[in-house]
Amino acid sequence: MTRPRQGTPPNRPNSADGNRISTAKKEDRRALPRAGRSGSHGSSTLWLWGTHPVLAALGNSERRCHRLLLTSEALRSHGPAITNLAKSRPLPPAESIERADLDGLLPLGAVHQGIALLVDPLPPIDLSDLVATARGRQSAVIVVLDQVTDPHNTGAVLRSAAAFGALGMVMQDRHAPEQTGTLAKAASGALERLPLVRVTNLVRALEELKDGQFWIAGLAGDAPCTLAEANLKGHIALVLGSEGDGLRRLTREHCDHLVKLPQTDLVESLNVSNAAAVALYELVRR
Amino acid sequence: MTRPRQGTPPNRPNSADGNRISTAKKEDRRALPRAGRSGSHGSSTLWLWGTHPVLAALGNSERRCHRLLLTSEALRSHGPAITNLAKSRPLPPAESIERADLDGLLPLGAVHQGIALLVDPLPPIDLSDLVATARGRQSAVIVVLDQVTDPHNTGAVLRSAAAFGALGMVMQDRHAPEQTGTLAKAASGALERLPLVRVTNLVRALEELKDGQFWIAGLAGDAPCTLAEANLKGHIALVLGSEGDGLRRLTREHCDHLVKLPQTDLVESLNVSNAAAVALYELVRR
Repeated sequence: MTRPRQGTPPNRPNSADGNRISTAKKEDRRALPRAGRSGSHGSSTLWLWGTHPVLAALGNSERRCHRLLLTSEALRSHGPAITNLAKSRPLPPAESIERADLDGLLPLGAVHQGIALLVDPLPPIDLSDLVATARGRQSAVIVVLDQVTDPHNTGAVLRSAAAFGALGMVMQDRHAPEQTGTLAKAASGALERLPLVRVTNLVRALEELKDGQFWIAGLAGDAPCTLAEANLKGHIALVLGSEGDGLRRLTREHCDHLVKLPQTDLVESLNVSNAAAVALYELVRR
Repeated sequence: MTRPRQGTPPNRPNSADGNRISTAKKEDRRALPRAGRSGSHGSSTLWLWGTHPVLAALGNSERRCHRLLLTSEALRSHGPAITNLAKSRPLPPAESIERADLDGLLPLGAVHQGIALLVDPLPPIDLSDLVATARGRQSAVIVVLDQVTDPHNTGAVLRSAAAFGALGMVMQDRHAPEQTGTLAKAASGALERLPLVRVTNLVRALEELKDGQFWIAGLAGDAPCTLAEANLKGHIALVLGSEGDGLRRLTREHCDHLVKLPQTDLVESLNVSNAAAVALYELVRR
């Protein structure tokens, strides 16, 4: 069973210009759609920005790419890599853009590193497909986020999940394109490489994971034992709540285990992405 | 030997009004100094914001506090805690402020949760004082950051350092007050509770740590073994570089050990605060 995102792409990019470098005309540049706004490519498009997210998206055959913008500096750095990626599939032509214009196009404060890519959202992934990837494996970890909505945090968790070999991540449905761009930046390429399943009902997702032979382990500061002490093995769904409120009552009730990380009382809690990284490390290190 | 920050404060706040609630007049509110700008309390003051950073600062006898601003909602939530803190030492009176005025006062996008505090920077801490706290202990960890400058990341590392019982953190000197406010927010109170030593020369700091019987362990993706395999014991200085460039050459050369974290190749690296959290966990779990 391969990862759900690695099949044949349902659609190819409109442009088959490969890696030809053009200079976006001033009028043309003004017409660039802001993320999530209606544009020539429809209202569901979004901008990705930053070296890792954009190069990873260009390399993901499931990601439909519409426009690729680079400052002259970024083009010098990444031109060869982009030319290389364009050998595998048609990519939109690289368009030259001034840094200030890119600043204006993207959300305020976006660390774009001189590169941005207008894309379609990835095709949705079914939880059942993700669960199926675990079959036949001795051990597997899926990360589940309960009410963790900050895109910096969710992106950082996805990055750590990829780094520590989790199968994928499950979170409640959020559609805001700017949020997705920020998530993609924080995920540093992991959004293109690890299945991110969006569900409308988290409790139902936990039930489905249980049916798929996953143990549900929730991180909670008041848990009776640490994650290491619980000595979990096999297929684990690791559930993390928001920093302020933790797991919701219904989520807690659907956990097979409540576990904590060992910590001092100098701070109330760990940052959620740091807690996720440590828990993932603990689960995979054995 | 006690932590350097827990002694008698060198200065007391100007105001001895305790926790009396006043309403800042409109003209007065307009005159509120922005972080780092010259104001009635001098140009070195800075704003802290958010529940955890502000309450932790109010409770830190080393922190000189000038003005405390709260929205009516935040006052309802935190009034009792502040009254309680004011029993131990004189605190500036709580001033009522509208959310929009607070938005305008603080850096754009600051998640202030309706509460802000104008403070002096903490008194500087000498590395020698931090090293001295390790004497007599069987094991101790100090985190050292090499060119990690993003305040969200440095703050998150400080928070994890506090959570996992590190003695303190060492980083190169940065003075920007807005950066410090952002660092304090990401540190979630840890800035008031864990010594943060700022040095001008990192290599000299590593030499001083060696003289203090610390082993210097640098995290590097190309290290020959993992942190767990290295089985480090005793007094450890854990050195982390920036995500893009890693440790600088001179820093690497001053490490006794180069170690890595086990990770897949789906992403190039972990976020630096996540890497720090995992490394700290690995060092203290044994």
